[in-house]
Amino acid sequence: MDIKHSTSEFQISHQGRTIIAHSHNRPAFYLGRGDATFNMYRGNFDIADYLTERLALRQFSIQENSDNTRIDLSIEGTTQLSLIVTSTAQGRLKIAFEAASDDYNRIWLRVDAKPSDNIYGCGAQLSHFNLRGKDFPLWTSEPGVGRNKETYTTWQADVNDKAGGDYYTTNYPQPTFISSQKYFCHLQTTAWANFDFRHDQFHELQCWEIPEYLLFGMEDNYIDLMENFSDFFGRQPELPEWVYNGIILGIQGGTDFTVERVEQARKAGIKVSAAWCQDWQGIKFTSFGKRLQWNWQWNPEVYPDLDKRIHELKEDGIRFLGYINPYVLQDYPLYNEAKELGLLAKKIDGSDYVVDFGEFDCGVVDFTNPEGERWYKEVIKREMIDFGLDGWMADFGEYLPTDCVLHNGKSAELEHNDWPRRWAKINHEAIAESGKTDDILFFMRAGYTGIQGYCHTLWAGDQSVDWSMDDGLASVIPGALSTAMTGNGIHHSDIGGYTTLHGNKRDQELLLRWTEMAAFTPIMRSHEGNRPNDNHQYFDDPASMAHLASMTRVYTHLKPYLKQIVAQNAGKGTPVQRPLFMHYEQDETCYDIQYQYLLGPDILVAPVHQAKQSEWELYLPKDEWVHAWTGEVFLGGWITIAAPIGKPPVFYRKASKHSALFDGLVAQL
Amino acid sequence: MDIKHSTSEFQISHQGRTIIAHSHNRPAFYLGRGDATFNMYRGNFDIADYLTERLALRQFSIQENSDNTRIDLSIEGTTQLSLIVTSTAQGRLKIAFEAASDDYNRIWLRVDAKPSDNIYGCGAQLSHFNLRGKDFPLWTSEPGVGRNKETYTTWQADVNDKAGGDYYTTNYPQPTFISSQKYFCHLQTTAWANFDFRHDQFHELQCWEIPEYLLFGMEDNYIDLMENFSDFFGRQPELPEWVYNGIILGIQGGTDFTVERVEQARKAGIKVSAAWCQDWQGIKFTSFGKRLQWNWQWNPEVYPDLDKRIHELKEDGIRFLGYINPYVLQDYPLYNEAKELGLLAKKIDGSDYVVDFGEFDCGVVDFTNPEGERWYKEVIKREMIDFGLDGWMADFGEYLPTDCVLHNGKSAELEHNDWPRRWAKINHEAIAESGKTDDILFFMRAGYTGIQGYCHTLWAGDQSVDWSMDDGLASVIPGALSTAMTGNGIHHSDIGGYTTLHGNKRDQELLLRWTEMAAFTPIMRSHEGNRPNDNHQYFDDPASMAHLASMTRVYTHLKPYLKQIVAQNAGKGTPVQRPLFMHYEQDETCYDIQYQYLLGPDILVAPVHQAKQSEWELYLPKDEWVHAWTGEVFLGGWITIAAPIGKPPVFYRKASKHSALFDGLVAQL
Repeated sequence: MDIKHSTSEFQISHQGRTIIAHSHNRPAFYLGRGDATFNMYRGNFDIADYLTERLALRQFSIQENSDNTRIDLSIEGTTQLSLIVTSTAQGRLKIAFEAASDDYNRIWLRVDAKPSDNIYGCGAQLSHFNLRGKDFPLWTSEPGVGRNKETYTTWQADVNDKAGGDYYTTNYPQPTFISSQKYFCHLQTTAWANFDFRHDQFHELQCWEIPEYLLFGMEDNYIDLMENFSDFFGRQPELPEWVYNGIILGIQGGTDFTVERVEQARKAGIKVSAAWCQDWQGIKFTSFGKRLQWNWQWNPEVYPDLDKRIHELKEDGIRFLGYINPYVLQDYPLYNEAKELGLLAKKIDGSDYVVDFGEFDCGVVDFTNPEGERWYKEVIKREMIDFGLDGWMADFGEYLPTDCVLHNGKSAELEHNDWPRRWAKINHEAIAESGKTDDILFFMRAGYTGIQGYCHTLWAGDQSVDWSMDDGLASVIPGALSTAMTGNGIHHSDIGGYTTLHGNKRDQELLLRWTEMAAFTPIMRSHEGNRPNDNHQYFDDPASMAHLASMTRVYTHLKPYLKQIVAQNAGKGTPVQRPLFMHYEQDETCYDIQYQYLLGPDILVAPVHQAKQSEWELYLPKDEWVHAWTGEVFLGGWITIAAPIGKPPVFYRKASKHSALFDGLVAQL
Repeated sequence: MDIKHSTSEFQISHQGRTIIAHSHNRPAFYLGRGDATFNMYRGNFDIADYLTERLALRQFSIQENSDNTRIDLSIEGTTQLSLIVTSTAQGRLKIAFEAASDDYNRIWLRVDAKPSDNIYGCGAQLSHFNLRGKDFPLWTSEPGVGRNKETYTTWQADVNDKAGGDYYTTNYPQPTFISSQKYFCHLQTTAWANFDFRHDQFHELQCWEIPEYLLFGMEDNYIDLMENFSDFFGRQPELPEWVYNGIILGIQGGTDFTVERVEQARKAGIKVSAAWCQDWQGIKFTSFGKRLQWNWQWNPEVYPDLDKRIHELKEDGIRFLGYINPYVLQDYPLYNEAKELGLLAKKIDGSDYVVDFGEFDCGVVDFTNPEGERWYKEVIKREMIDFGLDGWMADFGEYLPTDCVLHNGKSAELEHNDWPRRWAKINHEAIAESGKTDDILFFMRAGYTGIQGYCHTLWAGDQSVDWSMDDGLASVIPGALSTAMTGNGIHHSDIGGYTTLHGNKRDQELLLRWTEMAAFTPIMRSHEGNRPNDNHQYFDDPASMAHLASMTRVYTHLKPYLKQIVAQNAGKGTPVQRPLFMHYEQDETCYDIQYQYLLGPDILVAPVHQAKQSEWELYLPKDEWVHAWTGEVFLGGWITIAAPIGKPPVFYRKASKHSALFDGLVAQL
């Protein structure tokens, strides 16, 4: 690191990049006081801050010590904030913060920027991949239905349920970004934060506490950068071998029904790896649609004999997956058990805090209590793993109310964002303690800093069953790429989407296009949606069945390649789905492409995300690309290609060592 | 005044009210720096502030001088802002501001408050009369179509035209409020401001410059308070005598057509005072609907022989009114004349600034240039008064772009809010210089501080032709009351509303209910709406004609009473339409009633503002009230009364000295 300074300014540089540029006239550090209100309605937040002070820390003094540099920032001679700048492992640069008092609860930090910088990451960002030009509040919440104030779906969701969301609402925010200067920047905090990339000369990072530190890691290329990144945040394990054997079929309705659906699918030539039955623990119908019982125990009324048949299925090559989330339904056995053990989060008056999830209330198990964490792991082991489940959706994690009282005494406002990580850790450890890390799959939509080392895979959350850019099929792609650039290299989505509201119904075309995309991701998994009868399902007609059969053949054909790139993700943090610029960093066009991706180094996918398309325009970086279905070779640039349903725009590198495998793709159709 | 202080706090009190309470821990003054962006689209503004500093001025020193008290507010020993506190005329208290430097362009002032205080005024507020519990940005703009983000009309207006507005958007903001502690508080500034009444202990007044001063006037009752208020801001003149003779009929379509409509109306028993022909200067059709030519000269193609017939009409007891606004249509004669004289506002590059008004562009005559002001007065005198017009709508005034360059060298951001006052002044002076103040009527929707002394009457702006609370018939009532509490006692509205967009069409019922309300306001004036053919018109069927005839008889019957209360407004600033609490200040219920009003001291009106009502619930303060149509006497409280169309809920005080006149109302039906 390199700190240059005069009496009126200093710059902190590292490995050739200026990261902080401070002067009396253009200060880089501000402290303030604010009084926030958080109104949560079923996981949607209305957040406002009444900011009464924001003070520029203009003056400074610098002291060089043997193992760090200390910069004291002051107002009118009184030190308010100290920066302790150190080099850490792998050549990272750390700037730790020490506040002189607890007078301030707001901070703004300016990271130096060039107008040409592109920015990625910040968790799962569904509307924008390149974040430059916008600001991103970082707070885990429902992602919203519609997520664009200009769409009628969003307006209806807002007016009816306060649930419309916006371009930045996400289950998984993270105060970490990657700059095209090839560094990552991480702010260590769990407070509400806002990363503002609208300014030419700096990025302004705001958060509502004095954070622990700011961390920078820098490398010369993106592959090394992701290795550095994932060394710090942790890496996803490899996927269980069985995952690659076919689609995980989202089925609900009981044991016999499940077995019938699997048999029906297999007869149609669909390769099936697992049946995923959310309702293994019961069903609840609400005005929203078909929901679940939220008591994480086998429900023998809905799934009779499952305790035996689950093992028969496994012997027959079909895994059985379930569902859990971190809340327990009021007055049901697990709630009562947790309540008796004193493990539920409390209200200020000492009573148990129950949260409205939409026509039913649940307790929040307090994961800041080691006993709460231990007990939930026991529930997972006892009720799920020992029962024979080979995986589950570990849903939710975003609903911690900011006004509940927690065992560790910390403000729930500061615990809120950390809850998804705690939730992932519990799932991870329950599996690991059972020695099943290589055989059980769990998947989450919520996330925060640190989830990388715990969760096998994220899924893209609850897309609407439509073609909308911010909440439909298209939104999955920036979602996959931004989570990838936040160190989560294995991503997938509900095939066909989930949210079936406000007149949106899934039609055949949407289901087929979504299936095509999923065949070129590490995991294929289908979902009926919240109103199954309103949605086209894969079994609704022979054409859809045949299409799914074809796409599962394509997917399983890629197994050797997928296993290799998944191993790369587990070993070095190179994501499975990658932005084009990761391998073509000289090509400026690649930096703004958010609806295409590389699957590993050698396959380029440009999913058709609009209705009624027979051809598709896409960009190929300069290389020799073979069109998967015709063998035609392209050398790069914008092209338009025939893209009938069943033949999604997919290309592979002619020079790939897997080209023989890829040559075989067309035979799978 | 009374200033109490210790080393750590001071309070400024006046006539028994604490108005400023400052302490080190709870400072009342803040300075800051911000960088605002104003995006204007056809008069609708998207405004954002990037606030980089907000500093509490905690420390102070007080110096008592012979004629004032000076309070120096400082940060760490450096005085930043000085308050010069003086008593002024009529026992008002003035706090003038002196900034030590031009380092700061944002200020926040906290006026002391009690939790029980109710707040009124701030110009024309169409959604809320009692402003407590909300904040109100103060910036003159289009009011918006729908004005409520939860309505479908608003959403469509936003998405299609950025024009939906919100609860605070208004043509006429003013940084002046009245507290139920019976004082007015005025901030002398033309900058963007926000008055925040959400806090229990204080009102926080923000503005984007260092304002000149804060002014308080206090009295023991609301009648005296309005006299004090209007002594300071000016008072509306009395209305021309002819106004009371009947309705001002909004007609478009040419000389013969106008005369025919007037004759038709008279035959139907409708009392007509004037024909108001917006299109006297020409017509333009746009996708919005029927619009005007915007070249303020008689258009003999549309109105042949009007130069003669206008005088015949006047002899026949019918006045002829026209239309003007402060912009001139590009490439038309007045634009060319203004351009040649160098009177148009400029762009930064020196070229003329033309503003998009919706499919046509206009020049902005620079009223900061005395020559521009003089020339526009000449246009009014030459083209309108000398031609024989007896009045006009003086439309617009809200569209001054913040990035234009003005003759007086002042920032257009600071001139923007003042433009309506300048526009009113030009109209007022052109009329006064012609010696016609008592005979010509002009009416405006835009306003700002100081308009009170210039404009005869405001109208409520462009309501939608619907029943919506924030933009339909209902919104006129808080609009009338809030402008009244801002010193504009004469208010009226387009009978039937104006904005006919997004599927809204005026039906008969709405027109009839609106007519009923207008009969109990100082001026009756109809409007065809922007899409006349989509709207029910008074001449569309005999029932509507008969209803209007009846309501014009009611209105003209009230002439002696109306003249008297209008004279009270001109003489003492007592508004014509008054909130109930003005005369019943002990009755707490009255303070939150925003859809009823008193017409003068003796008539109470509770307009039916919902569709399909046969009866109506309303509140009567404790008094003896005679129902106008049945003679039934009520003694106060919530009542429900029959309210068929044609018999709006109207009551008069039994003890009124005009009771004999009011007894005659029913005979007019």
